[in-house]
Amino acid sequence: MAAAEGDAAGDGAGTAALGQRLAAGGQGHVLRFWPELDAAARRALAAELRDMDVAEINRFFRRARGDGGGGGAAAAAGLDARMEPVPRDVLGSACRDRGLLPRWESRGPAPAAAAAAGGGAARHPLPHPLQGMLPALGFDGKILLEEKGKIAMAPDGNGGLYRALGMHGIVDDMERRGVQSVHVYCVDNILVKVADPRFIGFCLEKGADCGAKVVEKTNPTEPVGVVCRVDGVYQVVEYSEISLATAQKRGPDGRLLFNAGNIANHYFTTTFLKDVVNTYEPQLQHHVAEKKIPHVDVATGQLIQPEKPNGIKMEKFVFDIFQFSKNFVVYEVLREDEFSPLKNADSQNGKDNPTTARHALMSLHHCWVLNAGGHFVDENGTRIPAIPRVTNGRSEATPADVNDNLKDANDLPIQCEISPLVSYGGEGLEKYVKDQEFRAPLIIDEDGIHELVKNGM
Amino acid sequence: MAAAEGDAAGDGAGTAALGQRLAAGGQGHVLRFWPELDAAARRALAAELRDMDVAEINRFFRRARGDGGGGGAAAAAGLDARMEPVPRDVLGSACRDRGLLPRWESRGPAPAAAAAAGGGAARHPLPHPLQGMLPALGFDGKILLEEKGKIAMAPDGNGGLYRALGMHGIVDDMERRGVQSVHVYCVDNILVKVADPRFIGFCLEKGADCGAKVVEKTNPTEPVGVVCRVDGVYQVVEYSEISLATAQKRGPDGRLLFNAGNIANHYFTTTFLKDVVNTYEPQLQHHVAEKKIPHVDVATGQLIQPEKPNGIKMEKFVFDIFQFSKNFVVYEVLREDEFSPLKNADSQNGKDNPTTARHALMSLHHCWVLNAGGHFVDENGTRIPAIPRVTNGRSEATPADVNDNLKDANDLPIQCEISPLVSYGGEGLEKYVKDQEFRAPLIIDEDGIHELVKNGM
Repeated sequence: MAAAEGDAAGDGAGTAALGQRLAAGGQGHVLRFWPELDAAARRALAAELRDMDVAEINRFFRRARGDGGGGGAAAAAGLDARMEPVPRDVLGSACRDRGLLPRWESRGPAPAAAAAAGGGAARHPLPHPLQGMLPALGFDGKILLEEKGKIAMAPDGNGGLYRALGMHGIVDDMERRGVQSVHVYCVDNILVKVADPRFIGFCLEKGADCGAKVVEKTNPTEPVGVVCRVDGVYQVVEYSEISLATAQKRGPDGRLLFNAGNIANHYFTTTFLKDVVNTYEPQLQHHVAEKKIPHVDVATGQLIQPEKPNGIKMEKFVFDIFQFSKNFVVYEVLREDEFSPLKNADSQNGKDNPTTARHALMSLHHCWVLNAGGHFVDENGTRIPAIPRVTNGRSEATPADVNDNLKDANDLPIQCEISPLVSYGGEGLEKYVKDQEFRAPLIIDEDGIHELVKNGM
Repeated sequence: MAAAEGDAAGDGAGTAALGQRLAAGGQGHVLRFWPELDAAARRALAAELRDMDVAEINRFFRRARGDGGGGGAAAAAGLDARMEPVPRDVLGSACRDRGLLPRWESRGPAPAAAAAAGGGAARHPLPHPLQGMLPALGFDGKILLEEKGKIAMAPDGNGGLYRALGMHGIVDDMERRGVQSVHVYCVDNILVKVADPRFIGFCLEKGADCGAKVVEKTNPTEPVGVVCRVDGVYQVVEYSEISLATAQKRGPDGRLLFNAGNIANHYFTTTFLKDVVNTYEPQLQHHVAEKKIPHVDVATGQLIQPEKPNGIKMEKFVFDIFQFSKNFVVYEVLREDEFSPLKNADSQNGKDNPTTARHALMSLHHCWVLNAGGHFVDENGTRIPAIPRVTNGRSEATPADVNDNLKDANDLPIQCEISPLVSYGGEGLEKYVKDQEFRAPLIIDEDGIHELVKNGM
């Protein structure tokens, strides 16, 4: 049971080879506490290290820290001056090009097919890319230990998707199946339009190999990355990378100059993805995030809780491949129609949490019902205005104050939800709701209407 | 001590006259419970009624309920079809007319004078208009009793301002002092620019008698009234008065067609105010709000808690007088620069509360410091990006997830506050902050800089 010292994993030759490989890569220190580990801990550490390509990690580090391309500190310098907004001719807009929407919609998949894709029927069985991992490194490139027998690991970013596509042969499989393009989204978003016919139709019409759906950024200090060109190449510039002056720049129409807010919602052709997987992705350098990383000091064995950043985590992002597109397009949509991300837990004054997501969905579906000719009535049978007045929980008996006409109305939206099996984007609801009056909550699904109907007219 | 019945206030002739006046106005029922009241209650009720012009209240009711002008239900019908957006030639915009801002600013009061006005030095000693009161009425026009000896009263709206200006001789006083125009705001707004030189300069250049400052409404269902023209006359159309289809209309530039969001911030010439007070305001009809009004049933003496609206409250609003302007203009400003209303208490998922107001002020002043060439550094002396990344209270030790690059950043703004005695709108800060590095919290007031300066360069 007890293996000889230095061979605790019960595989003397394998462990020795591992130690040599680590030492050759300058990472031999991760075995520093091996003699103190029990057999189980040794097995776990050996298993963790056996799958780790130390030479590759060292290459990642050198490239991420080096100045051989965009993304490093040197390249970031002067970024503001090199940024250009998305030109109008590669931009489609759901609010500025309303006249073209029917044409784009007709070129994309039928809404029913898109809805089915949203429901999972046409989804490709991709491996979940959510958690490729890389070791956290010190500023000197040395792998950090979280415990004496455990490497400090960190996710390698959602850009790990492309590597996963290659490793699992997914792109080849897509080609075999005749899949010509895919829709990808990378953030939890209750309003996402999977395989949006308008977006896809726009990309097809433009002959794009890569497209990004965006929402208008309206406040300069809003923390959202923007799609733009840098040195003539498309990329997402993150909000923390630009100066306030750049964020505040405006065009002649009064809009922010850099207003194409990235919502992690993309179109790719299979051909483009194939090039990415085979050629471009391996060339990508990681983004470096300097972090405070708790770790075991290899000299003393003490656990260090650093007070300032002491190391880095390395990530790739899905949008890193925009630069390789030969025909890149941007499609702008309305935030209230398509983007309500889930990023935080419910908490005081919280944004982008389960409550705001639910409210965004109900508010959108409430609008669908009104636009299809339906009405909502209150407990007295009185029609509720489209934008209802609600007195924030105050009793009607409380005397109004002079600000009442400026009080918030829609903190509590009309409760209304419509199944994607009934309507993809609000279409086809007339037969359910036109000239009908409803009391919330209202649910419409494939079994029909579930609510208190009143005075069907 | 006990007065004769019907004369409890100890003033037989006065009480009898009061009873006759009420009866003549069809409001005699408010004395229905007089015999049951003790002397103190009788005195209080008599005092309340003595100042009440019953004939006028009846006129208000008839006019508000009648169809003799805009605002009634009949007039509201078809409102959507009669609305037109503000024409571009009467619109000035802080974001679309940036080239004209220096000219307008030079025509307005000097920023120092405006700042002093904000501090109170140049404020006119107006009586506080916050609480003119009118009785609540049943749908039949009968005054409602809150208790057997107490009238149900409700505020008469912020439009009571004009009546107060007349009653207290304020407009005459303004003329005597040579005041040619005034700036009025009617909602608690931590970012308000009192006597904004650009807004006033724009109004002066346009020769306007009445101007409204607005912010762009960007979401159709946002609960904000919009400035527009109805039948060629300017007014504020409240959000609850329009259909969703109207709220969703967009112009060729993709903006909402009705996007001039009212923030209760106005310019008036003294001449216009004089005409309003003397001529127009008395012609205004009240807005009617149907409410559930708890009241004592005069037949049974029972306190009724109604389950559906049973009566009305009558209000006038400050913006009701736009229709009388001979030269009306609209001035659009950026919400993040000028509008953060205080309407609610702090509460979960709250908007427009003390926390959001504080954050809005600190965020704006943070921007001022950056634009004047200052920098903020974190506890390690590292410069903080203009739009900082903050991990929402999560420990840095927690593994990042793939959404980290989309996490909210500015839930907790840099703490920074600049006294209006130092800068009115961000000007003149270079001498305090240029090329300096600061650790928050930073306060700059007339005594100088209060913070932890680090590495002044």
